[in-house]
Amino acid sequence: MPDTIKYVLSEDQMPKFWYNIAADLPSPPPAPLHPGTGQPISPSDLGAIFPAPIIEQEMSMEREIEIPTEIRNIYRQWRPSPLYRARRLEKALDTPAKIYYKYEGVSPAGSHKTNSAFPQAFYNKISGIKRLVTETGAGQWGSSLSMAAEAFGLECLVYMVKVSFSQKPYRRALMETFGAKVIASPSETTACGREILATSPDSSGSLGMAISEAVEVAAHDPEASYCLGSVLNHVLLHQTIIGLEAKMQLELAGAAPDILIGCTGGGSNFAGLVFPFLKEKLRGGGGPRVIAVEPKACPSLTKGLYAYDYGDVSKLTPLVKMNTLGSGFVPPGFHAGGLRYHGMAPLVSQVLQHGAIEATSVDQLEVFQSAVQFAHAECIVPAPESSHAVAIAIHEANLCKQSGETKNIVFNLSGHGHFDMQAYMDYFAGKLVNYAYPEQEIAMALSSLPSV
Amino acid sequence: MPDTIKYVLSEDQMPKFWYNIAADLPSPPPAPLHPGTGQPISPSDLGAIFPAPIIEQEMSMEREIEIPTEIRNIYRQWRPSPLYRARRLEKALDTPAKIYYKYEGVSPAGSHKTNSAFPQAFYNKISGIKRLVTETGAGQWGSSLSMAAEAFGLECLVYMVKVSFSQKPYRRALMETFGAKVIASPSETTACGREILATSPDSSGSLGMAISEAVEVAAHDPEASYCLGSVLNHVLLHQTIIGLEAKMQLELAGAAPDILIGCTGGGSNFAGLVFPFLKEKLRGGGGPRVIAVEPKACPSLTKGLYAYDYGDVSKLTPLVKMNTLGSGFVPPGFHAGGLRYHGMAPLVSQVLQHGAIEATSVDQLEVFQSAVQFAHAECIVPAPESSHAVAIAIHEANLCKQSGETKNIVFNLSGHGHFDMQAYMDYFAGKLVNYAYPEQEIAMALSSLPSV
Repeated sequence: MPDTIKYVLSEDQMPKFWYNIAADLPSPPPAPLHPGTGQPISPSDLGAIFPAPIIEQEMSMEREIEIPTEIRNIYRQWRPSPLYRARRLEKALDTPAKIYYKYEGVSPAGSHKTNSAFPQAFYNKISGIKRLVTETGAGQWGSSLSMAAEAFGLECLVYMVKVSFSQKPYRRALMETFGAKVIASPSETTACGREILATSPDSSGSLGMAISEAVEVAAHDPEASYCLGSVLNHVLLHQTIIGLEAKMQLELAGAAPDILIGCTGGGSNFAGLVFPFLKEKLRGGGGPRVIAVEPKACPSLTKGLYAYDYGDVSKLTPLVKMNTLGSGFVPPGFHAGGLRYHGMAPLVSQVLQHGAIEATSVDQLEVFQSAVQFAHAECIVPAPESSHAVAIAIHEANLCKQSGETKNIVFNLSGHGHFDMQAYMDYFAGKLVNYAYPEQEIAMALSSLPSV
Repeated sequence: MPDTIKYVLSEDQMPKFWYNIAADLPSPPPAPLHPGTGQPISPSDLGAIFPAPIIEQEMSMEREIEIPTEIRNIYRQWRPSPLYRARRLEKALDTPAKIYYKYEGVSPAGSHKTNSAFPQAFYNKISGIKRLVTETGAGQWGSSLSMAAEAFGLECLVYMVKVSFSQKPYRRALMETFGAKVIASPSETTACGREILATSPDSSGSLGMAISEAVEVAAHDPEASYCLGSVLNHVLLHQTIIGLEAKMQLELAGAAPDILIGCTGGGSNFAGLVFPFLKEKLRGGGGPRVIAVEPKACPSLTKGLYAYDYGDVSKLTPLVKMNTLGSGFVPPGFHAGGLRYHGMAPLVSQVLQHGAIEATSVDQLEVFQSAVQFAHAECIVPAPESSHAVAIAIHEANLCKQSGETKNIVFNLSGHGHFDMQAYMDYFAGKLVNYAYPEQEIAMALSSLPSV
């Protein structure tokens, strides 16, 4: 059996700054627009739902933003996270490619989401906020924020997409273990939830709906803040610690990456890994191929439009320019709840526009087949979301086998699948299907994009 | 919030030898006896179910046994495992004690069990064995052996205690993900299973029954070996890497341990942590207090007899001298399936006889209360088994608060609870109870101890 190779950094080597890609974009990020007026928002417009330090990060054009000592001390529980060379997978594929993966499943919640949950809780705490309101799809974000809120003595209210709420009772139990209150969305607890239920009483929910409910609650409670686990600039910023570490680890390995891969739902784990590698490409220079992988059933990057749209169903959020399938689009209930979002991080959408990254999509069955293949070789059961990246890493490694090329393929294994075993059971039982590209639903949702 | 402190070893510092406590016992370990003749067994008697390298380790009196390079290469995926100082828990308890925990949940199966699963699979592979047969209670061992078997290209058959099979479908799914065949025990697939079902058709199973079934299958298949996840000398040997690492990490921390704590079911994680610290105590010298923690509902160390007994219900295994509640004792179905065993590792039982360790027991509700308290402070949800150790660590830290003593308390957090969320849900819903000490059942089982 080939040796396991793990590239480890010492705590001293853990980055002291996050990387803000906004400083390196060829053109400034398009301004978010006020949902009422359609005019560019000011920091104070965001004050109703975010504390000042978060708003400052959201709008910052500084290239490097210091990670507070308090957060570095918390990060040290699981960071620097390991970078592995998947030697056993390479052997199983009989490929000349070298496959590396950054493993974020070592975090206490089992995914990269803690990288942003703790900073968000921290900034809210020092701003005098008492409770955090959020939404969660797969539950990775909700459990991360629950832990972080508990750690800083804050209350936490989580709107969990109804289909995930039913599929994943143990994710919910994990959040409750950390004292969070978890509500299936859409719910009767908010005006927008009631409105959705009035027209669609059997709605299985979506991230767009859950965001509406969470934003509504936060906006009406002066002691509460809204927290988002992806999409926004400050979230992607916090996640760049993944790529900053990976860069150092790849240098340790003596491996210049040829291909970087991450799955994309809202974009945070993808951006976290790849943004620190994009500087030269954004200046028209060279660099690795960078591939975003999304589900065929929710293909915002490969089939969506780059346009101003709302982040939520009920049109409570600012309008942001992003790749979108239309805020009214409700994806089918496939087993990667973290990727069921109609939009894409504006910064990820923009680097796609600039040609610095490419995007592709995969079917559900290929995702699970790849996940099992990876697990057999590497002894880690990946989250269904992360398995989208696994699938394309295997695909590229197979292409290397055909061409004989020794490429360095790097992907982000953003989380483990310990709370996704029902999906694996369904897969083994032959119950999972590929979803047809929801062409009509997306066309309809896109037809009602706001005109700005 | 207090800083997280993690004590990390480099891969170069990972131990190259396991520690065999048999070499340091004041008296030699009592010989196992043949179940048919009652005479001391010879290595060849064990040949029907174990390969030669395992038998050699089981009977070895060498103090240090080299860890094969192949195993060290695999260990490197998750080892050296971290030692943490639980500063946030200390603060929550407002104790002057310093609490350290060795965290084995970082392994790919989520517990210490992989430390022995991979060596066992390796030794079987190089001995020409084609399939491994085992039992599992909580599922930690079964999933570890499933991974290890898959890694070495061996088949794996797991008899899973029926109550766990029902309580933990996702543990089963994890084993199946690695290609193992999982059967609820007692089953119709073996003669001893059929015999048990004939008299107790509704039996919820026990480790003692599942062992009988696995041993029966292995004994009748020349290409199969039996594997055990605890109790036996070679298993405890493999686990000593935990304590050998912890010793170095505590030196890094500048902390001489005052109290060492581990939970005990079969004894493997406990022995793994504490055996490397016992050398002086076994010679009549000083050393830390060492506490084994067991469930009040299955109290082999605190209420059992030190006597020769069978390891299984159907009396197929050799007789070993150990603390036992009687091989016919079936513990109630509490939520720590890994601790539902009538016996205790002979080596752990012997060091208790020598006065080098002490034992205590805790109730189920205290276990879960402590587990949640730990999770809130340290952001890790512990396995119910490991939470027995957490409970006594908290108890000792509270005593330090009363006395004002600054003791160094070290415990083994042997696994995470990601596959135990049903137990947590039941706890939150108020469905868990404390089990009365099963006095009559134990008395009855002890009354039929074999006379040797």
